[in-house]
Amino acid sequence: MPSWNDGSVKSAILRFVANVTNKSNPDYVEPDDRIATFDNDGTLWCEYPDPVPIRFMLDRVRDMARDHPEWNNTEPFSSILSGKRFTMANFSINEMIQIYVATSSNLTPEQYMSLARDWLNRSKDPRFKLPYTKCVYKPMLELLSYLRAEGFKEYIVTGGDADFVRAFSEEVYGIPPEQVIGSAIKLQFISNNSSCSVVKLPEILVYNDGQEKAKEIQLIIGRPPILAYGNCDGDIPMLEFATGNGRRGLGLLNHHDDPIREFAYDNDPSIGALDKGLKMARDWGWQVVSMKNDWNTIF
Amino acid sequence: MPSWNDGSVKSAILRFVANVTNKSNPDYVEPDDRIATFDNDGTLWCEYPDPVPIRFMLDRVRDMARDHPEWNNTEPFSSILSGKRFTMANFSINEMIQIYVATSSNLTPEQYMSLARDWLNRSKDPRFKLPYTKCVYKPMLELLSYLRAEGFKEYIVTGGDADFVRAFSEEVYGIPPEQVIGSAIKLQFISNNSSCSVVKLPEILVYNDGQEKAKEIQLIIGRPPILAYGNCDGDIPMLEFATGNGRRGLGLLNHHDDPIREFAYDNDPSIGALDKGLKMARDWGWQVVSMKNDWNTIF
Repeated sequence: MPSWNDGSVKSAILRFVANVTNKSNPDYVEPDDRIATFDNDGTLWCEYPDPVPIRFMLDRVRDMARDHPEWNNTEPFSSILSGKRFTMANFSINEMIQIYVATSSNLTPEQYMSLARDWLNRSKDPRFKLPYTKCVYKPMLELLSYLRAEGFKEYIVTGGDADFVRAFSEEVYGIPPEQVIGSAIKLQFISNNSSCSVVKLPEILVYNDGQEKAKEIQLIIGRPPILAYGNCDGDIPMLEFATGNGRRGLGLLNHHDDPIREFAYDNDPSIGALDKGLKMARDWGWQVVSMKNDWNTIF
Repeated sequence: MPSWNDGSVKSAILRFVANVTNKSNPDYVEPDDRIATFDNDGTLWCEYPDPVPIRFMLDRVRDMARDHPEWNNTEPFSSILSGKRFTMANFSINEMIQIYVATSSNLTPEQYMSLARDWLNRSKDPRFKLPYTKCVYKPMLELLSYLRAEGFKEYIVTGGDADFVRAFSEEVYGIPPEQVIGSAIKLQFISNNSSCSVVKLPEILVYNDGQEKAKEIQLIIGRPPILAYGNCDGDIPMLEFATGNGRRGLGLLNHHDDPIREFAYDNDPSIGALDKGLKMARDWGWQVVSMKNDWNTIF
């Protein structure tokens, strides 16, 4: 992991992996149980000032507006179209879910993923002037490769839509669609004669944040991870699930403390707040990764 | 696959696998997309006259009765305890869900799986006088091994509880917990100080039968399977999902037509009815596997 500076965090990662892969170590874990879960926004790629799935949703509202003249007089859509509200911080959670549902429904998952891919191909991060898929943290790609080589099975556990992340996860992270757990829209199954499809309904099935992350991990993977990596308070239950109850898993949190090379926003309550996480890291023995000091390269 | 007799079904399987694994064939499928989904009860092991997860539930009611004196006067529990009702056919779907919830809740998934393992270790199939995990179809084990060797990733997609099947799927089928999709109970996340757990609530989350199977496959795996294998009408949507809409997947149905070596119950409406499936198999090109003629060994 050449982009990681030597120090206590890197040592803790290397020591943990050495222990769980060493058959004669009391902490040895069989390869089948080496499950590692990663948040996406702010953990694997940039999320400031808006997580990329949110930027996609807001652009979708603008792209869909011509077919929805009623949106000019309906909140929260009208203030997106007028430019009055343009960032996640301007909306309530319920409004964001309303926008999520409106911009996802009446599409098959393939259609939705295709729209996501098109958008990712033509969009750029406003600060770094690069496609979002190039604003992925190099140290995290190195960690993903390292853990895979050590027999870990990696899951993305994201608050973003699962299909949005599936549109690029294999190509960018080497993580296949079935190892992406995310927010989701209810599906309808439609069959007639020799044709059949599933279509997204205008209703949310799961908003995969906070405790929901731990519950979805249990429901889908069938057991807790032995390594959980996040960056904000919404990831805390996932880290608790990996490390609590006598489990000796490794918990990690990216601390966005590098305003020069990336951003410093752990005090911004509108996104990625980590005040509770930093306190809990001490009590629970989680590693806080200073992006400023622990990483010699960001991208 | 030595337990499969030569014939049109075996040929169809071998031809399909040869095509999807041959890079120069127009039907070639990359290894990452070789997803195969299997029903469990009646497809991988015996289910007559009651699917094994149902037998577990009914035994759980009897085991739990001492702590639930009120069950002696409450249906559907009282007639299980009195012996008046003793098979799935005696109960409505809603009653079965009520029994499922009552026998699953207030347990962690680990506790539930441990109860399932204990029960499987001490229970035997009433006709074959063998542990249920020995009433697995040998031809199906050979098919699972064959497909795995050809790069397929196999999922069990069952109407039974996912954690019940996870209690034995790795050992019996070689299928790890994260490749089991099944019915599920809602979870509660509990955290205090340095301890954390998830516990099953007294509420069903998903009853994974019929259309739900196709929807859960899409939600969790993120795409349709290229091979789907079932044995009753509740598996039809899964087969439609693999083979409909221009997809060239392979659909397979076990036909329970061997009363001597196993059972013949495709006309029994209380379980595993396949009348719709046999008609659709002709229109959709699914393979109907005669357990009598296509298999030279059952167990």
